[in-house]
Amino acid sequence: MHSFKDLTAQFSQHFEKQQFPEQPSKLYNAASHILGISGKRIRPVLCLMGNELFDDLRTDAFEVGSAIELFHNFTLLHDDIMDKAPIRRGKPTVHTVYGEPAAILAGDVMLIYVYERLNKIETHYKQKIISVFNKAAIEVCEGQQLDMDFEGMEPEKVQYDDYVHMIGLKTSVLLAASLQLGAIIGGAGEGNQQHIYSFGKNIGIAFQIQDDYLDAFGDPEKFGKQQGGDILVNKKTFLLLKALELCTPEQRAELKMLMETSPADKVERVLALFRSCKVDEWAEKEKERFQQLAFQSLDNVAVLSNRKAALMEVANYLLNRQQ
Amino acid sequence: MHSFKDLTAQFSQHFEKQQFPEQPSKLYNAASHILGISGKRIRPVLCLMGNELFDDLRTDAFEVGSAIELFHNFTLLHDDIMDKAPIRRGKPTVHTVYGEPAAILAGDVMLIYVYERLNKIETHYKQKIISVFNKAAIEVCEGQQLDMDFEGMEPEKVQYDDYVHMIGLKTSVLLAASLQLGAIIGGAGEGNQQHIYSFGKNIGIAFQIQDDYLDAFGDPEKFGKQQGGDILVNKKTFLLLKALELCTPEQRAELKMLMETSPADKVERVLALFRSCKVDEWAEKEKERFQQLAFQSLDNVAVLSNRKAALMEVANYLLNRQQ
Repeated sequence: MHSFKDLTAQFSQHFEKQQFPEQPSKLYNAASHILGISGKRIRPVLCLMGNELFDDLRTDAFEVGSAIELFHNFTLLHDDIMDKAPIRRGKPTVHTVYGEPAAILAGDVMLIYVYERLNKIETHYKQKIISVFNKAAIEVCEGQQLDMDFEGMEPEKVQYDDYVHMIGLKTSVLLAASLQLGAIIGGAGEGNQQHIYSFGKNIGIAFQIQDDYLDAFGDPEKFGKQQGGDILVNKKTFLLLKALELCTPEQRAELKMLMETSPADKVERVLALFRSCKVDEWAEKEKERFQQLAFQSLDNVAVLSNRKAALMEVANYLLNRQQ
Repeated sequence: MHSFKDLTAQFSQHFEKQQFPEQPSKLYNAASHILGISGKRIRPVLCLMGNELFDDLRTDAFEVGSAIELFHNFTLLHDDIMDKAPIRRGKPTVHTVYGEPAAILAGDVMLIYVYERLNKIETHYKQKIISVFNKAAIEVCEGQQLDMDFEGMEPEKVQYDDYVHMIGLKTSVLLAASLQLGAIIGGAGEGNQQHIYSFGKNIGIAFQIQDDYLDAFGDPEKFGKQQGGDILVNKKTFLLLKALELCTPEQRAELKMLMETSPADKVERVLALFRSCKVDEWAEKEKERFQQLAFQSLDNVAVLSNRKAALMEVANYLLNRQQ
């Protein structure tokens, strides 16, 4: 059994070997650019952990992990084009550097390379692996479309359950599938696969609630982002949608006025409103609720509990930052 | 053995069953839009023919053909965004109707569905099928990047051989791979696979030379396009690149002036220049040369010649229009 840190190092070593050919250079430089500015390789490490929960690590888990990480980066690249985002993690986005056409094409070729990786694994579970992977990949695209659909809607028209469904697709199913794919490689049966999937799905939603909470109420120095960044751009978050549900008609009118007019003290006043309708307390409980669902699912996985240590570690790492 | 017409009808019946879920509707309507405005399903029919060259038609050839047709439509959809094309085959392009973000995402989800189709086939040749498919798919992306790279260059800087290489990637390898994939399903050995691939590759290049020729010298009524459309937009074509190679310094200066100033009689004057440096005669010979290479490869396929009838038919259909 390996620790989170250990598996991250092992995966990075595997992943950072030459990914792409040299020519055409613009195409592959654009694809390499996004790999250089993305994050912590959480998803492939979850795949390795899913494998190790049930059996010794296999080479296939590194191939499937690489496929997952390439796919995740492909979605970041194309999402940045769709969102017209100039910056990601402090670096210029791919389309800003290489132009939109090359950026679209670089994402496309990355998605084909995803399946080059998946095509390398052993035959006996290839059908199942590609099927589970594709289900998640399709859901990620559907989540992105729902997110864009919601963006064009008045916030009070977006139902809370529909929002949770969208966030689940956009951000959680890939975490969940990463664990399940690893579990398949480790030889897990269908029941255990579903438990570990459910663990990942609920951790993902709890993480997103925490992310929204920290953007509003976190310590900006520790969190590393501008406080109230979501509020400034009227982003639909767990907090905003729930606030609109919980608040009085007067509070709703004030919230809408603040969103429409964006006065200088917008962030403070929205935060005050959030507090007065207790959406901060609600968010902590809602995160806790999903976290409990996740740990319940992990409990249900039928392996010795000492095998679950690394997953507990990563869950605590994801869900306890800045607290 | 089935005719071209027969196979087209069989494939269409298979392909036009429900491709996508209903929701999110914008995403899947955008994906369905491109399927509704694209053409003659040549590539999947080549896949069926590749299968039937060696053995009775198998269901897998319909699945792989569907994957190929979905992939081809995905490339059309994304290419139209990259080229900012408002119209395809007389209909508004996907991004014109649904906006760029949904159009990018619709292409992405289509590419995932490509692999859903490929994942349905029998296990024993799945690794080989996905590998051959991916090689072609990657080359199509590389060809599109090279095409965009060339677009930004002065025409006399583009080497003829590099141009042939680009056209091969962008337009021929998918035709070639369609035949090879069908041949694999039909049980062909490596040698026969390579012969049929080479047939498709050379037919594709001959077709492109003919396409460029007809745009310049064809009967616009029969060809269905504006005569000299390529000349009007200074498109790099076989004719233009070869003309720049064959012409005198004076002719080259005139050609460059016509491209830069676009006078009212540009098409006539460029055509006169093309004729005076005999690029029209050259194009007919060059097309003939690739056509001969193609038929030589088809001859080399070790099956009874009566099995090749449908492929001869489709080659003649593709290469003798308007003559």
